[in-house]
Amino acid sequence: MRVAMMSDLLTEVLIPVASVVGIFFSLLQWYFVSKVKLSPERQTRGAHDHGKNGYSDRLIEEEEGINDHNVVVKCAEIQNAISEGATSFLFTEYKYVGIFMVVFAILIFLFLGSVEGFSTKSQPCTYSKDRTCKPALANAIFSTLSFLLGAVTSIVSGFLGMKIATYANARTTLEARKGVGKAFIAAFRSGAVMGFLLAANGLLVLYIAINIFKLYYGDDWEGLFEAITGYGLGGSSMALFGRVGGGIYTKAADVGADLVGKVERNIPEDDPRNPAVIADNVGDNVGDIAGMGSDLFGSYAESSCAALVVASISSFGINHELTAMLYPLLISSMGIIVCLVTTLFATDFFEIKAVKEIEPALKRQLIISTALMTVGIAIVSFIALPSTFTIFNFGAQKVVKNWELFFCVAIGLWSGLVIGFVTEYYTSNAYSPVQDVADSCKTGAATNVIFGLALGYKSVIIPIFAIAVSIFVSFSFAAMYGIAVAALGMLSTIATGLAIDAYGPISDNAGGIAEMAGMSHKIRERTDALDAAGNTTAAIGKGFAIGSAALVSLALFGAFVSRAAISTVDVLTPKVFIGLIIGAMLPYWFSAMTMKSVGSAALKMVQEVRRQFNSIPGLMEGSAKPDYATCVKISTDASIKEMIPPGALVMLTPLVVGTFFGVETLSGVLAGSLVSGVQIAISASNTGGAWDNAKKYIEAGASDQARGLGPKGSDAHKAAVIGDTIGDPLKDTSGPSLNILIKLMAVESLVFAPFFATHGGLLFKIFWNGK
Amino acid sequence: MRVAMMSDLLTEVLIPVASVVGIFFSLLQWYFVSKVKLSPERQTRGAHDHGKNGYSDRLIEEEEGINDHNVVVKCAEIQNAISEGATSFLFTEYKYVGIFMVVFAILIFLFLGSVEGFSTKSQPCTYSKDRTCKPALANAIFSTLSFLLGAVTSIVSGFLGMKIATYANARTTLEARKGVGKAFIAAFRSGAVMGFLLAANGLLVLYIAINIFKLYYGDDWEGLFEAITGYGLGGSSMALFGRVGGGIYTKAADVGADLVGKVERNIPEDDPRNPAVIADNVGDNVGDIAGMGSDLFGSYAESSCAALVVASISSFGINHELTAMLYPLLISSMGIIVCLVTTLFATDFFEIKAVKEIEPALKRQLIISTALMTVGIAIVSFIALPSTFTIFNFGAQKVVKNWELFFCVAIGLWSGLVIGFVTEYYTSNAYSPVQDVADSCKTGAATNVIFGLALGYKSVIIPIFAIAVSIFVSFSFAAMYGIAVAALGMLSTIATGLAIDAYGPISDNAGGIAEMAGMSHKIRERTDALDAAGNTTAAIGKGFAIGSAALVSLALFGAFVSRAAISTVDVLTPKVFIGLIIGAMLPYWFSAMTMKSVGSAALKMVQEVRRQFNSIPGLMEGSAKPDYATCVKISTDASIKEMIPPGALVMLTPLVVGTFFGVETLSGVLAGSLVSGVQIAISASNTGGAWDNAKKYIEAGASDQARGLGPKGSDAHKAAVIGDTIGDPLKDTSGPSLNILIKLMAVESLVFAPFFATHGGLLFKIFWNGK
Repeated sequence: MRVAMMSDLLTEVLIPVASVVGIFFSLLQWYFVSKVKLSPERQTRGAHDHGKNGYSDRLIEEEEGINDHNVVVKCAEIQNAISEGATSFLFTEYKYVGIFMVVFAILIFLFLGSVEGFSTKSQPCTYSKDRTCKPALANAIFSTLSFLLGAVTSIVSGFLGMKIATYANARTTLEARKGVGKAFIAAFRSGAVMGFLLAANGLLVLYIAINIFKLYYGDDWEGLFEAITGYGLGGSSMALFGRVGGGIYTKAADVGADLVGKVERNIPEDDPRNPAVIADNVGDNVGDIAGMGSDLFGSYAESSCAALVVASISSFGINHELTAMLYPLLISSMGIIVCLVTTLFATDFFEIKAVKEIEPALKRQLIISTALMTVGIAIVSFIALPSTFTIFNFGAQKVVKNWELFFCVAIGLWSGLVIGFVTEYYTSNAYSPVQDVADSCKTGAATNVIFGLALGYKSVIIPIFAIAVSIFVSFSFAAMYGIAVAALGMLSTIATGLAIDAYGPISDNAGGIAEMAGMSHKIRERTDALDAAGNTTAAIGKGFAIGSAALVSLALFGAFVSRAAISTVDVLTPKVFIGLIIGAMLPYWFSAMTMKSVGSAALKMVQEVRRQFNSIPGLMEGSAKPDYATCVKISTDASIKEMIPPGALVMLTPLVVGTFFGVETLSGVLAGSLVSGVQIAISASNTGGAWDNAKKYIEAGASDQARGLGPKGSDAHKAAVIGDTIGDPLKDTSGPSLNILIKLMAVESLVFAPFFATHGGLLFKIFWNGK
Repeated sequence: MRVAMMSDLLTEVLIPVASVVGIFFSLLQWYFVSKVKLSPERQTRGAHDHGKNGYSDRLIEEEEGINDHNVVVKCAEIQNAISEGATSFLFTEYKYVGIFMVVFAILIFLFLGSVEGFSTKSQPCTYSKDRTCKPALANAIFSTLSFLLGAVTSIVSGFLGMKIATYANARTTLEARKGVGKAFIAAFRSGAVMGFLLAANGLLVLYIAINIFKLYYGDDWEGLFEAITGYGLGGSSMALFGRVGGGIYTKAADVGADLVGKVERNIPEDDPRNPAVIADNVGDNVGDIAGMGSDLFGSYAESSCAALVVASISSFGINHELTAMLYPLLISSMGIIVCLVTTLFATDFFEIKAVKEIEPALKRQLIISTALMTVGIAIVSFIALPSTFTIFNFGAQKVVKNWELFFCVAIGLWSGLVIGFVTEYYTSNAYSPVQDVADSCKTGAATNVIFGLALGYKSVIIPIFAIAVSIFVSFSFAAMYGIAVAALGMLSTIATGLAIDAYGPISDNAGGIAEMAGMSHKIRERTDALDAAGNTTAAIGKGFAIGSAALVSLALFGAFVSRAAISTVDVLTPKVFIGLIIGAMLPYWFSAMTMKSVGSAALKMVQEVRRQFNSIPGLMEGSAKPDYATCVKISTDASIKEMIPPGALVMLTPLVVGTFFGVETLSGVLAGSLVSGVQIAISASNTGGAWDNAKKYIEAGASDQARGLGPKGSDAHKAAVIGDTIGDPLKDTSGPSLNILIKLMAVESLVFAPFFATHGGLLFKIFWNGK
């Protein structure tokens, strides 16, 4: 059988339908969350009707505070402050990013347009020279358009995520008054809003773009999908600023607030007397929510583009088999449906009754979605693919069977799960690694840091083997296309992944709001439990993000190499080797910038917080209000200013290397930064996560060992707080930003490949006659 | 002109003569040091006769303590304790290492012998199939022999270095009574003893081995120099245990001593009441002296072997041009002479009169030796090489001119200087990077650590560019031979490099002895000044060690690839790529092991030191003596036990990967670990060095900024101490050990290449039919 079972018409219908279902499901979740009223009136009984969706038994655990108008008003106020701070930061960020977008769009147009001297004449196709393709100028125009489309979609995804999160956090706090199960559902549903909106939106926009571009490109699929790669570049370059800017914002506020509040003034985290506390909460939303959303959207867009561009020069594209061609989009469509079913397991099929059920419920989400998705992939692979086909493999065509492609996607999916669980093992305080780190606090901060760094280094071993196995298997089966769909497999359950990931900062904020609104200790205990589970899931989410980034960037790298018409990237040539070693250095350079940025911004924050404590009378006593706005402004200004140099490093490196040193050296740089960056990213995230949870382990005092180290304020706890603070920029700024570094340089190289292949390597051309 | 100007006979004479001169010079320095008497009698006036060698004016600064018999006796006692501890540790280490040596020697013999089934028949040569070469069995036997020779030479180098250092430290202390200039000369001469002995010894043994092997091999130079590579493997595998074992030893003691002494008990560093103080001083000698010596000897041996093995299959070897063939040894011979002249600048031509002259004097050594050596290289290149010749370049022969080779060696030499100065910039507290780190201590240990890590990351940028440029230039000129001689160029001034490097721990120990012997504050100030300069030079030394390790391992990698008959190492094949990403992970795995080892060993030490403080009455008051021996034993046992897993990781990885996955994957592993490891090694060393000097900056209080942060015991100083403690394992254990990781895996692969090329890749052969 040489053609797919599924008709092209069905494909054209199913993809948008799945997207729309996803968006509808997302809105439905939002509707449920919105039922929690943020106004002091007694809530209507309407919610009662929903039976098992978690709202019916709200009276069971009602407590003293539930009718306290003041508390509700306060929560609403705080939520407003956080939401305003986040919105104002994002608008400021978008103003600068908008300028960048325009400039970079012009650059793309000029570079790609110049490939054939802005000629409007059709040209021979790159891969099949006997056919005629659209002019390079068209590629310039459509690449620019898809770049802008990707950028805008990324911004919208991040912004909506942030809006939902800030909409949900106070509601989660209020629900916590009724019980931990209610609060969990509120937080989880809000996360799901973001997850589904982002996944469905990304898919829909990509689908529409392909169909619109096709009106012009017609049968020139090679050109069509080359132009579509701009979508990935747009998504990822916005993610860069979201991750770096947001990461600096959140950690400047967090570190600044902790250093003065917790360490110097000895007041609890999220205490309303701390002037930086609102900025800290804003940071969670702009960094961990908007930044994370943009990051994963970028990965998703890039892996789709990488797969599509390779497919377009394989038998799918050459023979114009639409269903097979759109296999990556079908996988994503199936992913939305699978995640929808999975979500019901958290919100409707089971009910959380106790604190200790939270973490298993979240982990169950991962397992259920992975198991269901495996079946989903099998279905899609067997109905959407011909039983055999050929895939482009660096100049040759490789024969592949549909079951082989199933394995490629599935191994990516399951590697993601393995990485997730390993991450959990190394960052959850339920296991010995974090407990050992906590134990090392006995001898002070120095041993805590030594053990924490060692833990992070050690935690890379299994994920790297998992990635290596995925690469080997998927590469052996289906060359670079295999890698691209493996990355897509890892990201296919993105809606669920994002839901449990966004759940973390929402719970964190809910706890902060409870503290600031002066709610009872019992409520704070519940939100803390939600938050602790969220810490681990956040680490798991980072694991996924990094793992998928590694696969995505390798797939993009492969596509770049194909497009740049290089058939080997030989480490034994000096051009490639110097690229490799310099590429491996870039993550260090980049991390140095981002960490130093967090440090400097935090120092400014510390000075401001100290100033306020010293100059505002009655602040420590709680009789005067701090000036939250100034701290918000410091974080905003610092992050905007500090995100430019690392951003420039990432965006300019491929342009400079490609233009002056040529595609071989650029290949080396991409490979070097990939293999080096992925290690630092994993170790930085896990070290930071472990320190955070080691501190929480001591604070919670849930075991003899933990009680021996605590309580809060003991020497061991102080040592743990130092570790936690060091971990903040590692796990939330420099670590996650590295994903973007490795992906973005690869996708940028791919988009600019036509230019580099034609005009690149100026230096060698001038000095060594192209030797 | 196709032949060298220099006759083969002259070559055969000059190399041993230079070695003997080096050894003689070394003994002369030892003689000068030995004139400082470690017995309480008033020193004879005999020393007076030496005029300008620094001993004539010893009465000028004579002080109260000079005739205090007790002090001298105490110094002698302490020195004895240190020397005994070090000797006993090294003997214990050598016992285990000896077992390893025998086992590994057998492995080498079996693996290499099995290549042709232990046949005693001659076989066609690997590179020129039309000629007949010695059997593979001969290669097995001679490789095993040269491995043992390298191992023993390495052990002897390390051991003698340690002996000299422990012989010199108390003498330096005593000289400090007479003035800082005297003490400097004593410490520097002792360092020179080690530097010259090691350089000359390494050269002489290699030269003799070549000549003895030639008796059997005759005209089969290809086989001869293939067997000689075992020398590099032997040297480097001993260095592994020296660096790792010694590194764990020294830092377990140091961290343990500091955590209880400085932090908990608030007693000064090197206080004789601290039970771990002798172990700490022993550690400096076994880690920084013996370990460093073995490491650099390994680099030296490996770069010589890498150059020789490539030369043997180039026109030098094919045409049996002995002088050109031994060019690497001639460069080293010239290096000894150049360093000899350079040393006189420190000991005889100039005189140190004030503390601030110390650091410039040491830096001057680097500049003078580099400048002179550039001339030396030019001379050797023009008289020892034919004006044109061909160099083996992955299957082809590349035409090279003698001036091109001059540039290869010179660029390595000068890159070393650049790396040295960049290292100094980032680790000396005379410049802003360290001052910024010190400043960040104001807000506590967390910001100190964040800034310190960022500094380390940033400090890799220029060294990596320097290495990249060296690689590009030397590779472009003379392929892998160019890289090997560039490495040799960087190491050509090894005698001077080691002298200023060994000077550091000697001064450090001298300070410790002064403190323990209860000498006056003034003396301690002088030894502190010597030590501070030593800290920076130690960092410079580490920079050299890492830079040369990077070049050496690339050269070895190239030789391995040639021997394994691979013509390309294509990143775009899954076999190579998974090797690359796993290789890049290995330094993290290795660092996790070594850092955790230091942490665990330090915890044991802390418990013992606490136990002694709590259970020995009168210890804190100084009326009772601590039990030093138990602490020495703890460090010894821990380091022996803990060095095995990281050692096994390094030694087994090439064997496992080569045997089961084959030469392509192994090539990927080597390239990956090289490009990733070099970054971690540089950043770890510099971060640690910066923290150490930030602490010293605050303690010295030599500027307004520093005084604002101090004094000792202030919060900022405590934060700085935490950073310093974290930096200890980074800069003295995991960082420097990574040099060995990257070099050793490469040289091991080279030695086993004949086996891997014939029988390697079992897994692929079985499961994928060698695909």
